[in-house]
Amino acid sequence: MKSLILAINYFISLSDEDENLITKLFTRIHLPQDGYFLQEGNVCRHVAFIDQGLVRYFINNDGNERTMYFNKENEFVSNYQSFLSKTVSHVSIQALEPTTLYTISYENLQRLYSEIKEGERFGRLAVEEIYLAAMHQLNSLYTDTPTNRYQYFLTAFRELTQRIPQYYIASYVGIKPQSLSRIRKRISTGH
Amino acid sequence: MKSLILAINYFISLSDEDENLITKLFTRIHLPQDGYFLQEGNVCRHVAFIDQGLVRYFINNDGNERTMYFNKENEFVSNYQSFLSKTVSHVSIQALEPTTLYTISYENLQRLYSEIKEGERFGRLAVEEIYLAAMHQLNSLYTDTPTNRYQYFLTAFRELTQRIPQYYIASYVGIKPQSLSRIRKRISTGH
Repeated sequence: MKSLILAINYFISLSDEDENLITKLFTRIHLPQDGYFLQEGNVCRHVAFIDQGLVRYFINNDGNERTMYFNKENEFVSNYQSFLSKTVSHVSIQALEPTTLYTISYENLQRLYSEIKEGERFGRLAVEEIYLAAMHQLNSLYTDTPTNRYQYFLTAFRELTQRIPQYYIASYVGIKPQSLSRIRKRISTGH
Repeated sequence: MKSLILAINYFISLSDEDENLITKLFTRIHLPQDGYFLQEGNVCRHVAFIDQGLVRYFINNDGNERTMYFNKENEFVSNYQSFLSKTVSHVSIQALEPTTLYTISYENLQRLYSEIKEGERFGRLAVEEIYLAAMHQLNSLYTDTPTNRYQYFLTAFRELTQRIPQYYIASYVGIKPQSLSRIRKRISTGH
């Protein structure tokens, strides 16, 4: 769980006791490619940290699938909205590669927040990060053109362009794969 | 500042010392109707708590204004994204009524988080709340029809329907005022 300890350590300093408790509170699981961390219609019962692999978030809009986000190794993954409010998730989270995760339940996360010395601080800073990502998406939906959204994808998920199928990238941008090809051509020729 | 103390007390318990510090960290300001708490192009330097009044959040999309959110008395208000990352805000926040606010600077908010006994816990819980509101908006933009969005407005901002001009409600829903009139008629006649 070294990657997980390092990730928490990025936000707060951890004593040996803190590290021992973290090791106890998380459980290692494995998802095959295309396996689900969360399926639409269920409550999200866990937050997870990705040790290896890649997931996508998508929403099913009357049969029309929209990809909303991606998370890769060394990042946390959850529908924290469903997790917090214990309400049914409209979002599904699916592994795009064989994926290894460390998961923590709601009760254990509350223990992490309260029993680790700077646990609440970690919670505040981690939630601030996911809030910033959510707001970026929100502003982008209000104002960005598909070309802007694709350029943002290239910046935010640069290392992932080879790992994510083009039709999921098009779905994230909110256009058909053919339109994405046109944008890619236009960008590469500088027009 | 009793309303502010009560609002923080909703999340955490406060000692007399904590209350004294809070009173020192916030500053009372007043905005006239149509006055700005934050204007597009500036960094949001404060979080505020609304003692009296009402504000709207809007984004200017090439001259096309979209209303994103409302906050009223006893609620916190900020572009926390711009505030956290110290980047320029694309969102403006404007008073719809004469509005009295208690504001806190970035530095003072860090003091609140670290010097109040449960300050970090307050921060985590408050950020979780604004995160939930942001995610609701985000999911709604992906999936809701204008009628759904208006019905959500009626639920979430029920007490505000008389205080917000119809064209801002239409702008929040994402439609023209005439279309909102049609939706209202349809809902009231049950068709």
